[in-house]
Amino acid sequence: MIRAGIIGATGYAGGELVRLLAGHKEVEVVWFGSRSYQEIPYTNVYQNLFQIVEGTCGEKEMEALADDVDVIFTATPQGFCAGQISETVLEKAKVIDLSADFRLKEAETYEKWYKIQQKSPELLQEAVYGLCEWNREHIRSARLIANPGCYPTCSLMAILPLVKNGLIVPETLIIDGKSGTSGAGRTEKIDNLYCEVNENMKAYGVTTHRHTPEIEEQLSLVAGEKVCVNFTPHLVPMNRGILVTAYASLKQGVTEEMVREAYDSCYNSEKFVRVLRTGICPQTKWVEGSNYVDVGFQIDQRTNRIVILGAMDNLVKGAAGQAIQNMNLMFGLDETEGLTAIPLFP
Amino acid sequence: MIRAGIIGATGYAGGELVRLLAGHKEVEVVWFGSRSYQEIPYTNVYQNLFQIVEGTCGEKEMEALADDVDVIFTATPQGFCAGQISETVLEKAKVIDLSADFRLKEAETYEKWYKIQQKSPELLQEAVYGLCEWNREHIRSARLIANPGCYPTCSLMAILPLVKNGLIVPETLIIDGKSGTSGAGRTEKIDNLYCEVNENMKAYGVTTHRHTPEIEEQLSLVAGEKVCVNFTPHLVPMNRGILVTAYASLKQGVTEEMVREAYDSCYNSEKFVRVLRTGICPQTKWVEGSNYVDVGFQIDQRTNRIVILGAMDNLVKGAAGQAIQNMNLMFGLDETEGLTAIPLFP
Amino acid sequence: MIRAGIIGATGYAGGELVRLLAGHKEVEVVWFGSRSYQEIPYTNVYQNLFQIVEGTCGEKEMEALADDVDVIFTATPQGFCAGQISETVLEKAKVIDLSADFRLKEAETYEKWYKIQQKSPELLQEAVYGLCEWNREHIRSARLIANPGCYPTCSLMAILPLVKNGLIVPETLIIDGKSGTSGAGRTEKIDNLYCEVNENMKAYGVTTHRHTPEIEEQLSLVAGEKVCVNFTPHLVPMNRGILVTAYASLKQGVTEEMVREAYDSCYNSEKFVRVLRTGICPQTKWVEGSNYVDVGFQIDQRTNRIVILGAMDNLVKGAAGQAIQNMNLMFGLDETEGLTAIPLFP
Amino acid sequence: MIRAGIIGATGYAGGELVRLLAGHKEVEVVWFGSRSYQEIPYTNVYQNLFQIVEGTCGEKEMEALADDVDVIFTATPQGFCAGQISETVLEKAKVIDLSADFRLKEAETYEKWYKIQQKSPELLQEAVYGLCEWNREHIRSARLIANPGCYPTCSLMAILPLVKNGLIVPETLIIDGKSGTSGAGRTEKIDNLYCEVNENMKAYGVTTHRHTPEIEEQLSLVAGEKVCVNFTPHLVPMNRGILVTAYASLKQGVTEEMVREAYDSCYNSEKFVRVLRTGICPQTKWVEGSNYVDVGFQIDQRTNRIVILGAMDNLVKGAAGQAIQNMNLMFGLDETEGLTAIPLFP
Repeated sequence: MIRAGIIGATGYAGGELVRLLAGHKEVEVVWFGSRSYQEIPYTNVYQNLFQIVEGTCGEKEMEALADDVDVIFTATPQGFCAGQISETVLEKAKVIDLSADFRLKEAETYEKWYKIQQKSPELLQEAVYGLCEWNREHIRSARLIANPGCYPTCSLMAILPLVKNGLIVPETLIIDGKSGTSGAGRTEKIDNLYCEVNENMKAYGVTTHRHTPEIEEQLSLVAGEKVCVNFTPHLVPMNRGILVTAYASLKQGVTEEMVREAYDSCYNSEKFVRVLRTGICPQTKWVEGSNYVDVGFQIDQRTNRIVILGAMDNLVKGAAGQAIQNMNLMFGLDETEGLTAIPLFP
Repeated sequence: MIRAGIIGATGYAGGELVRLLAGHKEVEVVWFGSRSYQEIPYTNVYQNLFQIVEGTCGEKEMEALADDVDVIFTATPQGFCAGQISETVLEKAKVIDLSADFRLKEAETYEKWYKIQQKSPELLQEAVYGLCEWNREHIRSARLIANPGCYPTCSLMAILPLVKNGLIVPETLIIDGKSGTSGAGRTEKIDNLYCEVNENMKAYGVTTHRHTPEIEEQLSLVAGEKVCVNFTPHLVPMNRGILVTAYASLKQGVTEEMVREAYDSCYNSEKFVRVLRTGICPQTKWVEGSNYVDVGFQIDQRTNRIVILGAMDNLVKGAAGQAIQNMNLMFGLDETEGLTAIPLFP
Repeated sequence: MIRAGIIGATGYAGGELVRLLAGHKEVEVVWFGSRSYQEIPYTNVYQNLFQIVEGTCGEKEMEALADDVDVIFTATPQGFCAGQISETVLEKAKVIDLSADFRLKEAETYEKWYKIQQKSPELLQEAVYGLCEWNREHIRSARLIANPGCYPTCSLMAILPLVKNGLIVPETLIIDGKSGTSGAGRTEKIDNLYCEVNENMKAYGVTTHRHTPEIEEQLSLVAGEKVCVNFTPHLVPMNRGILVTAYASLKQGVTEEMVREAYDSCYNSEKFVRVLRTGICPQTKWVEGSNYVDVGFQIDQRTNRIVILGAMDNLVKGAAGQAIQNMNLMFGLDETEGLTAIPLFP
Repeated sequence: MIRAGIIGATGYAGGELVRLLAGHKEVEVVWFGSRSYQEIPYTNVYQNLFQIVEGTCGEKEMEALADDVDVIFTATPQGFCAGQISETVLEKAKVIDLSADFRLKEAETYEKWYKIQQKSPELLQEAVYGLCEWNREHIRSARLIANPGCYPTCSLMAILPLVKNGLIVPETLIIDGKSGTSGAGRTEKIDNLYCEVNENMKAYGVTTHRHTPEIEEQLSLVAGEKVCVNFTPHLVPMNRGILVTAYASLKQGVTEEMVREAYDSCYNSEKFVRVLRTGICPQTKWVEGSNYVDVGFQIDQRTNRIVILGAMDNLVKGAAGQAIQNMNLMFGLDETEGLTAIPLFP
């Protein structure tokens, strides 16, 4: 059995890691890291796992933890773990970082958008961006994974086939994202209270959201040119689910068939990506609790723009599920192990 | 007292008309038109109005109704009333049509998007588009009002100041709309069931939604040129509220001050429009149950685009509230009478 | 104009007071007391009131406040204001206390259930329990009102007619309450987060909830004997609304007609109480945003028990609305002034 | 592989059967019965299963179906299948009926509460009530299972240990049930619309709900005497989940230890029942998507009553999950096969 430690095990992404790994045949979670709940049984924090998971929360230096485990998941806020992930740690254990610390290759970009210092610049080049379907080979041999953000995962999975095949004009890209509230974490603040979110909808982080440079960097890599986008996230009164609606101008002569062919060629053999039939728009509920991303599109002949749609569960494919998919790749396991849950409906 | 008749009184827009008019000092609802609930007491259909409203549902020809009332509200599906609104009716009573039948000046456009015949083409030129803040003078003297659609109202209120002042490039406009479920009406179909909408989000009518030509026609009138936009509506798990996020490229040299000045000059003396402070994004809950539209914006220097935001209650300013505002104007009443409810929070 | 000060103006009950008083013709709120938001404009805290309410939050001793105002509303946690309400304060201003500090006549009972010291025992006898429909005459001449709790208001309004008329066996009473989440206040804690409440339901405070002795004390006063009940509150994923389902054995020979007559005689002339028709069960949405309490009942011949149902908006009739109704009585105003909002549906 | 046919495959319970069986290693669904969606691919009806499930909806006589399959699940309204289940069918295939047709042993009781004729009275004695934990041995050898109702399952699992051990006074039992909306089925009616259920709560079927005699019959069997209860269901704005709060007087001398011992002795070796720690109240979210039932209790010394709490997912343990658990028992499979999903949180 692979021994796993989770730092930040009591946030929502950490909780989802514990839940999914409890159903994974090759992995045992042996460390539940939590500063807030030290010495408290894990299932006191997440009663849904009562009688399923055993263990007590604690805090430990990462180097010491690396002695005990084969893989460390860090599900902590940005900047929290970066300084602790060292060459010594990586020699002992693989690290899958669910924070944003290693997603941006330039420390300067990171510091500009996140307003905190990049504490491990020396690891930036080694870290592999863990968008599994697009980076599989690098992931297999990686020691350190930058697990993608939720909005970037959904946006990139929906848009990259068009960029790769040169079908859209990159600088016209506008991404309008909508997310359930679990994406905001288990943080005690007024904006996250039930009464503030329920029966409400709002945009936030308009023009300044930190997932913008992450999306741009990955689009640029595939496009082969610098891509700059507008990205606007919105908070939706639901627990789980991200829906991305993206808009771009089609390059001249691009047809619906070419678009469909681009999606099919990228995703036909992908287990976790479903390209929906023509005329069917993704719904977040169709992927709830699963590692699927559903993508669809519609072309507007009047404006020669394409409307690109993607939906996924932000806690699974957008966080813990993709982290486990990365782990499966890194350890040479079946890529779908622990991730075969079928979407819950209704 | 002004005597009002409502055709389609038992849908959600009709119910909201009854509710708001029950608090209006100058109007008495004397006719509750409903095909489905004939001879049933109105408060059996809407128990929230028990002991507040008296009356029984019935069905009647519009000409006969026009003999009994001063104003007729039609809150019926498109095509349902159009054929019945005649010169004879308009000589006897003012008509405020909440359907889409008179919103588009060209019968051809109507028939193309709605797939039904325009049954009253002779009234199209007379009908006045009832976007109160932008069309007030024509409304005052109108006999027939085309009450604007919910998405168009919110979109136009947010975008028109920029078009009027020539600050954006109209053909770059992309409108991403999000609506609560009451906009779909009180219709018994699977898509409207609680379990299908709750914990779910989806786009619908992508590139084909019927509010598109309505938005375009009004934008074009103010722009002085034909404007073509992308409009994508989304269904959100909440009862009330529309949020519009629109994107457009700024014309060269346009500054934030110029944008703010445009909004202020259009709306400073408007009772029902609130231009939010810099950095504050509208939330649908801040306008719930009220006739307000809240607008805000954010400029992205990196892409030279502006993100325009608008929020309102789709059943009030987006339907029944604006209809009453139109009625107030048509009858020379205080424009805010019956519409002074303060937004409910939380 | 009556000048009002609100201590605890930024909680949900305080916010509702401000909102309702903004629509009250005879009152002006001149003081927005808040420890957390000192020197912050009130509408920064509640943007729904932007351009409607003017004023800045602050903190002030109650005696000083009493010099400036005619009435003080205290919407603070238990024990927070009790010590400050003094004879000096009451000589200058009327006080309506929305906390539980003056609801229980025995300091000992208060201290047992609330686990805090009763700091103003000398005022307990003077304080009037502000259940308007049942205590109207004492309220008119009161200086200090103990505004009833939300569950007690809904329970008592539904049950008291049966106790008063001796139709049920008091010791068989079981009260199962269900409340929307705004009843838990605007408190930053995990239990109140959107993701914890949404798609979830639970009982809480089972056998120990502090509203139990309040319900019992009022029932006992009307019954003329000590009544002991089981009360179990539940948290429901909605913002507003309380539903109470109570069970009791009917006394021998009691008929449905006697029950209906009991409700009618108590409530026929009450503006804010609606006794629903036979077979109609109250729904919280039918009273949302209003000061109404809806009551209904069903007799089970098989068990000779009656099922008693009550529904109201916990922030209006269950807190701020009833506080204003009390104020209207104390100042000799129309009892309904500021409270005529019609329930919002849907 | 066991071949399964589902009649009524497109309702919510049917959809959950298909979803759960898609993850079951020993079963293949070969027939998707649906009158409404004949000849339509199953995943057009439930897009969450796109690329996971293959098959087309159809209609077929049950005898013909029985030739093709080993087990038939009927997830249809009451009375729909009863007449078709014959000796001939049962000789060919096992039948698990999710409707209420075989739950009540007396045709007379069925007809009184359901107002429809019992069309298969000759099978009533053979049919086994499929409450797995309480009836396991009879289930193993059964040909026809009456799969329990959702409220009865949750109520009985929570209450039976106390009845079996003679700790409560049966005639004092009051059961207050709360259910998510999926329990109402995928039925196109106004009461099930999103806008009617959301932000709302109500009781329904007060004193007349059809699950009452089912609960009573099973309680009576274990009690050894006729038990009559009050049962009141409530509709809660959530998709999944049932919470039962039951009240009963303790027999003299019963202590908390005796109660806990009763639960432990009944459930200690049960995989799908979790007896929560003292002071912890069940929450529906802790069991969502799983086959667990969580039970808890609290004793009120003041009234000598016990408050009994149970929570489960109405579509899993309350319908499709328990049906599969029954199937596993009937076919000698591991009782947990296909049912090991871990509760989803949040």
